[in-house]
Amino acid sequence: MLASDTPVHGIVANSGNANACTGEQGKADAQTMAEQTAAACGIETDSFLVCSTGRIGELLPMEGISKAIAESGAAVVEGAEDGESFSNCILTSDTRKKTCTATFEVDGKTVTVAGSAKGAGMIQPNMATMLAFITTDISSEGIDLKPILLEAVTHTFNAITVDGDMSTNDTVLLLANGESDVALDDSTLETFKAALFQICDNLADKIVADGERITKVVELLISGADTEQGAENIARAIGNSLLVKTSWYGDDPNWGRLMDALGYADSEFDPEKIDISYGDVPALVSGTPIPENKPKWKEVVSNRRFTIHINMHAGEAKYRLRASDLTEGYVDFNKSE
Amino acid sequence: MLASDTPVHGIVANSGNANACTGEQGKADAQTMAEQTAAACGIETDSFLVCSTGRIGELLPMEGISKAIAESGAAVVEGAEDGESFSNCILTSDTRKKTCTATFEVDGKTVTVAGSAKGAGMIQPNMATMLAFITTDISSEGIDLKPILLEAVTHTFNAITVDGDMSTNDTVLLLANGESDVALDDSTLETFKAALFQICDNLADKIVADGERITKVVELLISGADTEQGAENIARAIGNSLLVKTSWYGDDPNWGRLMDALGYADSEFDPEKIDISYGDVPALVSGTPIPENKPKWKEVVSNRRFTIHINMHAGEAKYRLRASDLTEGYVDFNKSE
Repeated sequence: MLASDTPVHGIVANSGNANACTGEQGKADAQTMAEQTAAACGIETDSFLVCSTGRIGELLPMEGISKAIAESGAAVVEGAEDGESFSNCILTSDTRKKTCTATFEVDGKTVTVAGSAKGAGMIQPNMATMLAFITTDISSEGIDLKPILLEAVTHTFNAITVDGDMSTNDTVLLLANGESDVALDDSTLETFKAALFQICDNLADKIVADGERITKVVELLISGADTEQGAENIARAIGNSLLVKTSWYGDDPNWGRLMDALGYADSEFDPEKIDISYGDVPALVSGTPIPENKPKWKEVVSNRRFTIHINMHAGEAKYRLRASDLTEGYVDFNKSE
Repeated sequence: MLASDTPVHGIVANSGNANACTGEQGKADAQTMAEQTAAACGIETDSFLVCSTGRIGELLPMEGISKAIAESGAAVVEGAEDGESFSNCILTSDTRKKTCTATFEVDGKTVTVAGSAKGAGMIQPNMATMLAFITTDISSEGIDLKPILLEAVTHTFNAITVDGDMSTNDTVLLLANGESDVALDDSTLETFKAALFQICDNLADKIVADGERITKVVELLISGADTEQGAENIARAIGNSLLVKTSWYGDDPNWGRLMDALGYADSEFDPEKIDISYGDVPALVSGTPIPENKPKWKEVVSNRRFTIHINMHAGEAKYRLRASDLTEGYVDFNKSE
């Protein structure tokens, strides 16, 4: 996440090749993409940001990219269709486009916050093989957007996992052009933050839900932890455990595997105090299993979406992680590129 | 790992149920197993160790276990066949038994170190869902075997991964009965340590090679790291990456995914100094890819066993991790118990 002092007019993105681990040539290629895009749009150089996503360690096929940039420049039009078209273009292993729009009114003027993201695999934040582009017509003159964006990202894009693999190429960009004629100030800040959170939260959810060959989205709500870091460690140990993820896939509410992952998470707790429930069905109360609820746990886990609540009874801290299951399809899909 | 002051006469182990997260009843059941086994063998109480492996969170079916213990006690015979029989009995999702024997001579007397292990899934040390039983006829009178065993375990049983899931029920036991009439002392210590390492190393290798539905064993040799912990972090990030493991399965020498995992391992390094080779075929030298070697990398990765060397050129520390690939079969096998 960077804060830009020079005006940014747009983004040029490619998929299929991450332009990562490509050394000096890679840097030069990114620079070329920015310059060619600016030229194609008739805008000053150094006003475009460059994003790439795809295979690591191979040079970009610059001939094709240059040709495409020249063609795109001529095709740029204003309006919503262009946003849709952009959202489709950035997809890689995604099966559907991911967009979200929020609006709010200030003194009869409408402010829009709109986001578009891609990401399906190599999803474990900080942040994931995901690109997210958020635009707004609020005026951010004199305001540092970076901490505002970071706050929204922390519990959305940074709180998801598909496969536990972090990425070389994760990006979230927030661009504001001021066209709404509404200023971001003390009177609009909280409303703007809420809209931004909503966009990030919705897009983060769509990324997990479109995880490579997944069948389930599981919301892990850890509460009563001694520290937020402890709560996060627990959520990530569970959400990244292959044995937990495969059991979700198999509709098996195997709380023993949750307890096992809790045990190796880097967090202090007393196993005899823990409550676990699947949805609103208790599986473990104060460390004691409620086996008669088993048919109901199974019903919860057989849904495409469900929530697991874990209360550590060790403090006040909490953490939410959105995780997916793990399927044979994921393995098959990723066994070669 | 515990050091026992009271004499231990044997081990009673069950598979299919881990007797973990079973509270007071679980503790009582373990005690009952020890007592019944001692009674069945006609030996004093408190001389048997108890090991369990299997599903977490369910009470042991004590009726069946008690019956089996009574029958086993009557069936105990001395000799190698019994060792074989024991090795078969402790298997769970293992497809084959895992045993190893080493001997050495001291003044015409033979010392034997023999081991038997089980483990195939939930394999990420400290230590793994593995049970390993090592017996020797050396006399360890007055010697603390614990640090000697720990030294052997650190770079063998604690340096393997199948799925990155640690276990509730990992155990390594070393029992010495002194029957060889050879004492463990300054003159025999190094030879004994070498034999013990060989047993642990061989059994650890067999556990990875029999990992649940795996097709490959990959030896990761990290060298030139700033610290051993840094080298271990790198090896584990790579060895537990779903994207790396699936690419091995697909015979895809995707060094980009190795670099990605290196990037999120908790270790300091300069990407432009790294050497990576598959077997003896360089893929990356000083951070620069050698694409002309690609056909040869592919050949290496298509083997059932291969080694990846990664030199960080950041120091002198090194670490070796044995890892497996990840297959659709693993997912299918673990989706329900």
